[in-house]
Amino acid sequence: MATKTSKEIRNGSRFMVLRSVYVRGTVTRAQISADAGLSPATVTTLVGELVAEGVLREAGQVSSQGGRPTVTFQADPDRGALLAVDVAETYIRVDLFDVSLARLDVERVELATGTPSIATVAEQIRECSRRLLARHRELDGRVLGAGVSLPGQVDPERGVDVFAPNWGWHDVPLLQPLEQALTVPVRIDNPLMALATGELWFGAGRRFRQFVAVNLGTGVGAGIIVDGQLLRGPGNSAGEWGHTTLVWDGRACRCGRTGCVEAYVGVEGFRTTLGEISPGHDLLDVTHHRDFMERLMRAEAAGDEAAQSALLRTGDYLAAGIGNLVNLLNPEHVSVLGWITRYTGAELHDRVRERIAQECLPGPSRTVSIGFTEADGEGVGLGMAVLALEAFLERVGLPSSSSSQTTPSPREAADTADGWVIPRPGATD
Amino acid sequence: MATKTSKEIRNGSRFMVLRSVYVRGTVTRAQISADAGLSPATVTTLVGELVAEGVLREAGQVSSQGGRPTVTFQADPDRGALLAVDVAETYIRVDLFDVSLARLDVERVELATGTPSIATVAEQIRECSRRLLARHRELDGRVLGAGVSLPGQVDPERGVDVFAPNWGWHDVPLLQPLEQALTVPVRIDNPLMALATGELWFGAGRRFRQFVAVNLGTGVGAGIIVDGQLLRGPGNSAGEWGHTTLVWDGRACRCGRTGCVEAYVGVEGFRTTLGEISPGHDLLDVTHHRDFMERLMRAEAAGDEAAQSALLRTGDYLAAGIGNLVNLLNPEHVSVLGWITRYTGAELHDRVRERIAQECLPGPSRTVSIGFTEADGEGVGLGMAVLALEAFLERVGLPSSSSSQTTPSPREAADTADGWVIPRPGATD
Repeated sequence: MATKTSKEIRNGSRFMVLRSVYVRGTVTRAQISADAGLSPATVTTLVGELVAEGVLREAGQVSSQGGRPTVTFQADPDRGALLAVDVAETYIRVDLFDVSLARLDVERVELATGTPSIATVAEQIRECSRRLLARHRELDGRVLGAGVSLPGQVDPERGVDVFAPNWGWHDVPLLQPLEQALTVPVRIDNPLMALATGELWFGAGRRFRQFVAVNLGTGVGAGIIVDGQLLRGPGNSAGEWGHTTLVWDGRACRCGRTGCVEAYVGVEGFRTTLGEISPGHDLLDVTHHRDFMERLMRAEAAGDEAAQSALLRTGDYLAAGIGNLVNLLNPEHVSVLGWITRYTGAELHDRVRERIAQECLPGPSRTVSIGFTEADGEGVGLGMAVLALEAFLERVGLPSSSSSQTTPSPREAADTADGWVIPRPGATD
Repeated sequence: MATKTSKEIRNGSRFMVLRSVYVRGTVTRAQISADAGLSPATVTTLVGELVAEGVLREAGQVSSQGGRPTVTFQADPDRGALLAVDVAETYIRVDLFDVSLARLDVERVELATGTPSIATVAEQIRECSRRLLARHRELDGRVLGAGVSLPGQVDPERGVDVFAPNWGWHDVPLLQPLEQALTVPVRIDNPLMALATGELWFGAGRRFRQFVAVNLGTGVGAGIIVDGQLLRGPGNSAGEWGHTTLVWDGRACRCGRTGCVEAYVGVEGFRTTLGEISPGHDLLDVTHHRDFMERLMRAEAAGDEAAQSALLRTGDYLAAGIGNLVNLLNPEHVSVLGWITRYTGAELHDRVRERIAQECLPGPSRTVSIGFTEADGEGVGLGMAVLALEAFLERVGLPSSSSSQTTPSPREAADTADGWVIPRPGATD
């Protein structure tokens, strides 16, 4: 019988505690217990560990029902900083966060067109983070880790990019070059998992335990949240909705199959549909993805009939693709995210809403809600900061229950895990 | 922030304990703890409750590592019986199980063609179960509950069949007519959830925590198991893979959409494909589903080229549909179940194996295994027996921790929950 390790269970419980803290800002142990579905005794132990590691601190006291005051906790922004890196196909963006997940600063660089090597990517990230930290001297030696999102099928366990079709990457090792460049431990993932993690902690995850976070961008995907946890699968590739067949024997997809969702609702899907409707259309030559979407929507608003038809037809494909997710997964909610939604705005949203009921079975269509966001794509960085924080907490280890509520001695501040010196609370004060 | 109730957590933990017992046959508390991912203290409490309710009993002792003997437990077959009912579109089958989930006996009746009312269905079930129990007088008054599988989108919480397209049922109340007919508490569900539950407890669930149980029959669907739990969704309709679009603008499906997986890989999918290949083919007139599949495969084996092509093409559709599941969910395993597999045997299996790698992304295709079963369709009954047992345990309540290890007094034997008299252990001895 397949079993979970006690470490997995314990990590899962810790993250449930942390999510409660970050979502609410200031919490009592009783609120954490209710949010996380954990016993009061377990919550007391886990909160004790997080306080010992300096991630949480006491925030004050509130009156409880019986009149006795009860302690509240919050994330401790002074614990250190996290780097969150979004490596997209056309740019690299590096965000600096404190441990309360407040964004402190940002640096950005454009990537030259073509296929970069991981060495090039790592060097650009190094430059951005150097500039960033030069403006925040107070954080010297206090960066706890970095989260780096890269395109394609990224396997955090093996530390490789399994397959990034746009760059032709196959099984490219990522971890070593990135950790050499950043000189802190690195957690890698892809934009879909990052966005879905952000949505789980700070978006729909506040209200729903089972939902889907659809990402519409150059690539498309669907982060699947079940029972409050992001579904990853053994190879971290769950959510590749963009590479499910929607149109048998349809358009060639960059993954090598035909008729994939991504070939219809990603940015190249918009372009191909426009070309089918109006073969010689001016906009077909606009190769930059965001420029293309911006100009397509400007044309649509100005009454360009081909652009209008392309938008409606893409809405039909998107509704069918979302209908597939709703029928298969019976989610409480679908969040539509990603940079394309910033450009398409209400128009795409309206078309999907118009069509979605007929794409769903009567049962699940009654209960599901569909939400479009027009957020500006900073969700990837936020999600990677969360994942970097999780990785940091995994590295500092899981104290045994006998030691879990003691503060580490100064000597322990020099302890290493995975070969990294882990900055300890107060070590640089 | 969405939360789980403590009752949900407790029920979930109980079922993890039970699965460990049923899968292993005889277990120690330490084995349960490892299987279920629960602390030894929690396991001691939950096992105590199940012993108090007479579901488990001590089986003996084994030597433990330190030499001190440790107690083993097993399911107690004498606790009572469960009825498991499979209402298919052409027949009703009623199985009698004991609490150790051994099958004691079975009755079966053919359903007349046409659309039956729930009253007709309930009456036929009553007749079957009367004949069955007449042969097992020792079980008088000791039937703990029944599990009834009905076709379509069944909502166990609301007790209704939301939508059964083949019978034109919409929001048909099921619970009251079935409980009146059977005079025991009834748990309803659909064949997909029943089959997937059986596969979770006694099939792939012994080896995998994340897998998909594909059901190929008159209807088709995919039970999704995540983290050792069957995904249901708020309306119990998760798994409607049969009603996801595979062929944009394709064949009309009985659900009202077009191009659904079911219209290509269900029994009517085979028939339509055969008709496309050979419009006047003899077998197109065979309306009985199992007769059709049997004769199709006989023709295929005898060298009928249209039958051979229909099988290969259906294999291609099935591989693409399974590829969609693999890409979206990155499961460890896919089990292909259902009565169609009994007829198609190795031929369909071989074609899917041939095609599956090119339908999957490189990452998930490396790790997934695909297993076809040729089991004889008794999985629905077994799954419904498991669900009836779960429902019984929910009804007998969740004692508070202070009372959890005391055996109920004879007076409590007459207690009712949900209006039902619950047979207590020893009450009929």
